[in-house]
Amino acid sequence: MTAGAPRIAKLVVIGVGLVGGSFALALKSAGRVDRVVGIGRGHANLELARSRGILDAAIAIDADWTRELGDADLVLLATPVAQFPSLFAGLDGQLPAHAILTDAGSTKENVIADARARLRATLHQFIPGHPIAGTEHTGAAAAFPTLFRERNVVLTPLPENDPSAVATLSDLWSACGAEVRVLDPAVHDRIFAAVSHLPHLLAFGLVDLLAARADAAELFRYAASGFRDFTRIAAGSPEMWRDISLANRDALMHEIDAYRGELDRIAAMVAAGDGAALEAVFARASVARREWGARFGKGNAVAADGPREA
Amino acid sequence: MTAGAPRIAKLVVIGVGLVGGSFALALKSAGRVDRVVGIGRGHANLELARSRGILDAAIAIDADWTRELGDADLVLLATPVAQFPSLFAGLDGQLPAHAILTDAGSTKENVIADARARLRATLHQFIPGHPIAGTEHTGAAAAFPTLFRERNVVLTPLPENDPSAVATLSDLWSACGAEVRVLDPAVHDRIFAAVSHLPHLLAFGLVDLLAARADAAELFRYAASGFRDFTRIAAGSPEMWRDISLANRDALMHEIDAYRGELDRIAAMVAAGDGAALEAVFARASVARREWGARFGKGNAVAADGPREA
Repeated sequence: MTAGAPRIAKLVVIGVGLVGGSFALALKSAGRVDRVVGIGRGHANLELARSRGILDAAIAIDADWTRELGDADLVLLATPVAQFPSLFAGLDGQLPAHAILTDAGSTKENVIADARARLRATLHQFIPGHPIAGTEHTGAAAAFPTLFRERNVVLTPLPENDPSAVATLSDLWSACGAEVRVLDPAVHDRIFAAVSHLPHLLAFGLVDLLAARADAAELFRYAASGFRDFTRIAAGSPEMWRDISLANRDALMHEIDAYRGELDRIAAMVAAGDGAALEAVFARASVARREWGARFGKGNAVAADGPREA
Repeated sequence: MTAGAPRIAKLVVIGVGLVGGSFALALKSAGRVDRVVGIGRGHANLELARSRGILDAAIAIDADWTRELGDADLVLLATPVAQFPSLFAGLDGQLPAHAILTDAGSTKENVIADARARLRATLHQFIPGHPIAGTEHTGAAAAFPTLFRERNVVLTPLPENDPSAVATLSDLWSACGAEVRVLDPAVHDRIFAAVSHLPHLLAFGLVDLLAARADAAELFRYAASGFRDFTRIAAGSPEMWRDISLANRDALMHEIDAYRGELDRIAAMVAAGDGAALEAVFARASVARREWGARFGKGNAVAADGPREA
């Protein structure tokens, strides 16, 4: 591979879901990959990925999958993060010297800790990453080549990484249409606890609260577009969000506590009938949300208003 | 007017915003109204409504607006609900005997209490209503004739109402494309505290929390489609949501307290690292949200994924 316009002969995707499958499709669509081998748990999902042209070959994770690593140029881990430790153990020492190993995990400090615990010979080849793209739909059926267009992809490189390998990976993500940004892993985890992990927990909580009631059917009959959008992310993968909640526990607890404080303040305003204080909170939020929509909402509107509406 | 296919000669809309303006456009589009007169606070908004063909005439609320009532067939109150008491006082005794007075307020028990306090001669003509449709955009500029298509419109009639007048109003909302449902006002307020008012407060709270931080710009840079959808409703009108929060205070406090309990339970699971309990919550919510999307999401997808994305 050259850093100018890297092209990879063999990509191995471990976990051929929405993100892993879309990465393969995006690189194929950009003409940057010759052959994609998928490794996963679900036979039917792998077959679907083959039939959709995402994969050229597939192998089950409970078979001898590490035999695919010896001639790999790039390996993407795109399973739920709880599976990373055993995958790292299987990968260690199996990759050629020029290969890059990266991941798509939504948390980075715990992934790096797992990598340091399990990767020895291969550690310097592991460049942690997090594509900020997704929908509430899962599996290879949900993959599409433009998932990463105009989306942020965060890399949190290790001191051990070769800068030219980081440049190569960055270029490949750019070829998928993404904006690549480099962050410290702890900063990454704090940011996403606030803007992603906390909102997911809040949305799951609301739906769980209402679904458990005797009159849930009546409530849901009257729920409208506000409810629909607020709770869209509550249709996400329970396993993935369980893993994220545990993997980023400290930063997430900090955000939950901060949010409980905010909710207590708003509750006190409602209880006291303090309209001026409520209006001030709502006005600050409304201005901030409108400014966010004008600055950042457009790129983010592309992927979620498409065919993936629940 | 006949109950079969009622057609109104003169509609008066007080508060020519998204809902009031869209009601006028929908009835015009259905050929059910001859002339629409708008009454409002903002001169520029009224002018815009005239230029868009929403109104045939406009009058400022601080002028002698009650002179428009003597030959009105239908009057819609579509201002924030805090303005209803003074509007009721101005309306009382001014309408012809056959006319219908209705509203679009998001809460019903307090509106009915206000009506009972301020309407004497006209009380039996007031049929409380709540169209379950809206976007985060406001003003006559945001109005469009299909806002109510496939949306619920709830009526909470008074014992004093003439059933044939209720049938006429119901028919007019149906002509706008809406599904008309009748509810007890207290049931209405409890349902919407849960599925609408609480989620709005939660979304306002999250944006307010993050916007107040020193690193808000960095946080917002990485916020993606999950944040966008969760917080869309936090771009709504601060004044309207202040009024709703106060008008439905008791039911809303009940929901806030229930939600705080849910959030405490989830926080305890995160703090304890209880992955199985978290996955169970997320799975219940995910199943419920997917079922909701399949049953009710389609109609609700029409209006909010259109040109109104922030």
